[in-house]
Amino acid sequence: MNGFTPSLEKLIDQFARLPSVGRKSAQRLAFHMLDMSDKQAAEFTETILNARASIHRCEICCNLTDGEICNICNSPERDKSVICVVGDPRDVIAIEKTHEYNGLYHVLHGLISPMNDINPEDICIKELVIRLGDDTVKEVIMATDPTVEGEATSMYISKLIKPLGVSVSRLAYGVPVGADLEYADEFTLIRAIEGRKEM
Amino acid sequence: MNGFTPSLEKLIDQFARLPSVGRKSAQRLAFHMLDMSDKQAAEFTETILNARASIHRCEICCNLTDGEICNICNSPERDKSVICVVGDPRDVIAIEKTHEYNGLYHVLHGLISPMNDINPEDICIKELVIRLGDDTVKEVIMATDPTVEGEATSMYISKLIKPLGVSVSRLAYGVPVGADLEYADEFTLIRAIEGRKEM
Repeated sequence: MNGFTPSLEKLIDQFARLPSVGRKSAQRLAFHMLDMSDKQAAEFTETILNARASIHRCEICCNLTDGEICNICNSPERDKSVICVVGDPRDVIAIEKTHEYNGLYHVLHGLISPMNDINPEDICIKELVIRLGDDTVKEVIMATDPTVEGEATSMYISKLIKPLGVSVSRLAYGVPVGADLEYADEFTLIRAIEGRKEM
Repeated sequence: MNGFTPSLEKLIDQFARLPSVGRKSAQRLAFHMLDMSDKQAAEFTETILNARASIHRCEICCNLTDGEICNICNSPERDKSVICVVGDPRDVIAIEKTHEYNGLYHVLHGLISPMNDINPEDICIKELVIRLGDDTVKEVIMATDPTVEGEATSMYISKLIKPLGVSVSRLAYGVPVGADLEYADEFTLIRAIEGRKEM
């Protein structure tokens, strides 16, 4: 016998295909699935299918939502004159956790990356331009990842929307708060020195 | 907004409950589920439910199988006079990989552990004793994990079945003490089988 019984091998294969799940973890997860109660297993699979059926992109900001328009776009308390542009719905949560930003968001669902064949038309840039059609939005803050792709995406969008008369800014680069300066890489330090503030 | 949209939070929660899956991994897995094609998602959930429906314990050795009797118990080529007793179905695979052992197995589905309230009647010891009812089996090799629980289980079973006139041996301590049997390499396992000692 070279492996587990066929249905179990198939189950392990399914888990092994998930991101960051190796063969041993896939085995552990598969055995966990077999050990679950019927109720737990039904809940697990139904939650997946329900989430897939009900989650879609907000008609305004492209963030993931159960409704037609997401809670942030719907909220009367948010400042509708600022849009913060991020690459991924997880970035919205990261910024929301600061409790410092009260504007709206726009989720691109990806970053421009010619190497991976991701072009401007593959991410939600068109939807952002449409939002800038009236005079409500005064400022756009680019908060894409501080990577080559994030930088390229920011530059592209900035050039595209500046002619629409909106102010465009970028998250400050610098040394992360609480980190050791000696572990900061050269590029971060160069940016931190360039962006120094008078005290 | 404190988190993702409700269905997505629920999906992340489901993944976060899985063993060795932290909050960040659960998020990554949940997003992966949303990114799957409908076909892939259906296949994933169906594989889980199918595996749960079709996998059960072999009537003879308690190993997991799709059929009534597992491939090993069914095989005319296996030596029916030796039974290797293991704690978990994964241990069977680990020993099979050595290609050195040609006998049968018995899977206990657990190890005696009073601290975790796992008593002899909670694991498949009764089924092992029944198999020793006729004279077919001459030797039982105890191959439970080389841990306190594995050792205790071995001792308990050894005392129980020796009066039945069967020779009982234990894997030699070629296996590293304190580790999980399923992680032992083939050569260590081969040495352990060769060097087994009568109990």
